[in-house]
Amino acid sequence: MTRADLINLITGKKSFLCIGLDTDLTKVPSHLLALEDPIFEFNKSIIDATHDLAIAYKPNFAFYECYGTKGWLSLTKTIRYLNDAYPGQLFTIADAKRGDIGNTSQQYARAMFDPASSGMNFDAVTVAPYMGEDSVKPFLSYPGKWIILLALTSNKGAADFQFYGNGNQKLFEQVLTKSQLWGSNENTMYVAGATRAEMLGDIRKIVPDHFLLVPGVGAQGGSLQEVAKYGLNRDCGLIVNSSRNIIYASNGADFAEKARSESIRIQQEMEQILKKGGII
Amino acid sequence: MTRADLINLITGKKSFLCIGLDTDLTKVPSHLLALEDPIFEFNKSIIDATHDLAIAYKPNFAFYECYGTKGWLSLTKTIRYLNDAYPGQLFTIADAKRGDIGNTSQQYARAMFDPASSGMNFDAVTVAPYMGEDSVKPFLSYPGKWIILLALTSNKGAADFQFYGNGNQKLFEQVLTKSQLWGSNENTMYVAGATRAEMLGDIRKIVPDHFLLVPGVGAQGGSLQEVAKYGLNRDCGLIVNSSRNIIYASNGADFAEKARSESIRIQQEMEQILKKGGII
Repeated sequence: MTRADLINLITGKKSFLCIGLDTDLTKVPSHLLALEDPIFEFNKSIIDATHDLAIAYKPNFAFYECYGTKGWLSLTKTIRYLNDAYPGQLFTIADAKRGDIGNTSQQYARAMFDPASSGMNFDAVTVAPYMGEDSVKPFLSYPGKWIILLALTSNKGAADFQFYGNGNQKLFEQVLTKSQLWGSNENTMYVAGATRAEMLGDIRKIVPDHFLLVPGVGAQGGSLQEVAKYGLNRDCGLIVNSSRNIIYASNGADFAEKARSESIRIQQEMEQILKKGGII
Repeated sequence: MTRADLINLITGKKSFLCIGLDTDLTKVPSHLLALEDPIFEFNKSIIDATHDLAIAYKPNFAFYECYGTKGWLSLTKTIRYLNDAYPGQLFTIADAKRGDIGNTSQQYARAMFDPASSGMNFDAVTVAPYMGEDSVKPFLSYPGKWIILLALTSNKGAADFQFYGNGNQKLFEQVLTKSQLWGSNENTMYVAGATRAEMLGDIRKIVPDHFLLVPGVGAQGGSLQEVAKYGLNRDCGLIVNSSRNIIYASNGADFAEKARSESIRIQQEMEQILKKGGII
């Protein structure tokens, strides 16, 4: 998906909501557990109930890998459903935090972006920057595909290394600066946590035009208004993720309906933000 | 596996060789391709031919994930075979470079360490440190299991961020220093690339007693003698990985035999190093 297509999704749906599919069997409504693939059925119901309100979906790989091969099958079915049921209408993110030496990152890129090999065809993958340029670049060789590089994450441990640095730049700022030599705002985004919204201002000084994937609104405590205040740019430039608040809005038979209600609430707040910012 | 058990493997086999199972279908001998699961059959043959010479095996997850669910099944069969065919005789490493916020790393830990959930039971997992303490600690809550934290990697891109820092410490040194507050030398190892062997001396100043997993000998150009010179400690303290040099020593019907010959060559060199170091 191109940058222009993504912006069209945002202005068309009046939303910059990403729904995180961190699907946990212990939180799935009990009536689904009797089905052959409760994780996929749960995801399908959430997607069907929210596809017109969200612009992106982000399966979190850990929640599938913990069930081994069976979980990987649920993941594959989920991305296929996203591609087949709503073609061109959704931006799909493999939240996998991958990154390794060049010949290995090449294989991870095939896993995420080459359906003929892996059966999966995501638009984007989250990538960890620790191993540097040759660990990142193989993901950038697929036209129309994106990396979302970890810069400043939403968790407490972000402070351990991401703020480390010399007098001039912290590590996360160095990641933002250096990685612009590898890709462009047409194929690179950054993870920037909502729990440190005021720091989105510092990030915008280095990457004014890039899209930011912002986790941490909701269960982790971040505020959408604060994120917009510091992070919004002229193209929106934000994809804000919510996982638990939406997908576990109810644990009863009405889970999909309640996920829709919560998505409507967020989408309406986003619509106001986009109007106020002159984007729609 | 405990630290004492690992040291017993090393002194018993007179080896600190890890064989990397970066199994690539384009390099597997053609006679295997007709079988139902060529990747597993290849791995099984390599393991059977080398299990008395290597102390550890390290499947590289990317090479399985690129084939999607089918690849994940080959991976699961491989770790099961390592566990079942040679119980207690091999240290098994999930080379997966995982790491995410706490509740997500918990799920990755289940994937690697909880066979009742995922079907996989590795002894150790490689972990990326970028997201800090809460991304690492969930892996440490499994008794007898290990993390192998990325410190100084063997690739060119290592120089991009791992050397970044203030006047006192580079980032990789900060990772070594800070992570000692989270675990101990009984459950934590570090990745330290052989391509920068002389820097193993700097690493040993910070972690004199920890085990180091050393990739990069062989295809990437590192030297075993140099690694031993700077990295060996009184318990050996090294697990040296070789992948391509061993598993692709031949691409013919004699691939397992040739993998054994190459492993013998390396094991004999390691035996001399262990003798010279007074470890055996």
